[in-house]
Amino acid sequence: MNAQPSPSYQARLDARSGKLTSSTANLAPGHVQANLVILPKTLAADFLLFCQRNPKPCPLLAMSDPGDPAVPELGRDIDIRSDIPRYCVWRNGTLVDQPTDVKAIWRDDLVSFLIGCSFSFEEAMLDSGLPVRHVEQGCNVPMYRTAIATRAAGVFSGPLVVSMRPMKAAEAIRAIQVTSRFPSVHGAPVHFGDPALIGIADIGRPDYGDAVEIRAGEVPVFWACGVTPQAVVAAVRPDFCITHAPGHMLVTDLLNSRLAAF
Amino acid sequence: MNAQPSPSYQARLDARSGKLTSSTANLAPGHVQANLVILPKTLAADFLLFCQRNPKPCPLLAMSDPGDPAVPELGRDIDIRSDIPRYCVWRNGTLVDQPTDVKAIWRDDLVSFLIGCSFSFEEAMLDSGLPVRHVEQGCNVPMYRTAIATRAAGVFSGPLVVSMRPMKAAEAIRAIQVTSRFPSVHGAPVHFGDPALIGIADIGRPDYGDAVEIRAGEVPVFWACGVTPQAVVAAVRPDFCITHAPGHMLVTDLLNSRLAAF
Repeated sequence: MNAQPSPSYQARLDARSGKLTSSTANLAPGHVQANLVILPKTLAADFLLFCQRNPKPCPLLAMSDPGDPAVPELGRDIDIRSDIPRYCVWRNGTLVDQPTDVKAIWRDDLVSFLIGCSFSFEEAMLDSGLPVRHVEQGCNVPMYRTAIATRAAGVFSGPLVVSMRPMKAAEAIRAIQVTSRFPSVHGAPVHFGDPALIGIADIGRPDYGDAVEIRAGEVPVFWACGVTPQAVVAAVRPDFCITHAPGHMLVTDLLNSRLAAF
Repeated sequence: MNAQPSPSYQARLDARSGKLTSSTANLAPGHVQANLVILPKTLAADFLLFCQRNPKPCPLLAMSDPGDPAVPELGRDIDIRSDIPRYCVWRNGTLVDQPTDVKAIWRDDLVSFLIGCSFSFEEAMLDSGLPVRHVEQGCNVPMYRTAIATRAAGVFSGPLVVSMRPMKAAEAIRAIQVTSRFPSVHGAPVHFGDPALIGIADIGRPDYGDAVEIRAGEVPVFWACGVTPQAVVAAVRPDFCITHAPGHMLVTDLLNSRLAAF
């Protein structure tokens, strides 16, 4: 009798075979999911330094060797060229394709960066009975460009992008405690309250994702967001770049519970 | 050669001898200071239950045996009747005396409750570079009765009293992290932002202590306060009760750093 693959490995096998081409939200509960940025080696050192200098928006979980599609730190038998349900392919800063596999365009100089994702801390929030409004409303999290600058590294620079979840103050205090335990998936919020203080002009009009309801007695709470590195890379318009399609993440074998710092 | 007494023991010896009759703020840095409530044994069970049900305003560090002036959990050779610089003596809810010693009025049925104090978490905040406005301004912390009810126990009930420290949102996030480590000295805040949401009508008029400046871009952050148990006891008007005088605390041999939960 063969053992069943773990839920996370099964998700990757399904993406690899073409059976899974949709969002990975709620797949393999308890497992860390990761954002993907693939860059040519010539940009890799700058991008690694950018991540090092900006750990809240860019918590780097793993980085591959050039040309190597394996990411052994994050799971068994990962082939980064096929194990994500859908990719975005960028040439000179323009989105040119959204394939389910990038084997045909793989190059020996490509380096993969896997970056922590808010799915992990949202799971911890939901487990603590905290509200996650965009999950309740069945839409995407609202995200905003801010007036907070990231720390530049080589060619990479740009504004911090934040995600927003509204809740009551007492819930926000608990959310700060819960998410502080997960520094490798964005950690504690960067701001709460008045959006204007971080350069957000209209909370009802997110720059990415969907607007969500903010109820009476609630304050918006803002976390550093994994869209930041994607926006920073897009601004550089590299000749070639691959990312995951939004919401279509790498499902890793790591457990969210293992990321807890305490 | 005799060893020097520790700074905390020296503070108690100075209170005992009458040399120290002023506030204990900044005495024996690094050491836990405690609020004191002394009640007749007939009220002790109810008050213990009140503390158990309301650990944020009433974090009980130690409770004595009836009639016993020692509190060995909190320090060497403590005599609770003399080791606090100034006491308040209450009869039927009225403040009747503020002596520096209560040996003359001690009774065999008196039980001492020692309750954690915000001096401990303020030290942790200052050590983290966070602002503590009333320390900057050299005044008492502003405190407010709220519309949040404590959980009643026997004869004891009443509103939660909170202390307030204003700061920027990013500082408040850090302050929540820092103070969460100290659950036995009030722990994380209970609220931030709009004072009206917890029944505070005028942030400029505290019910106890002094008003402090709230600067542009700052939010008020509210912690459960050790004045809560004193207010609750005062409301019951027990025939006899002794407390410390405000700011005149028991300096214990415990280290603040030992209270950190993680």
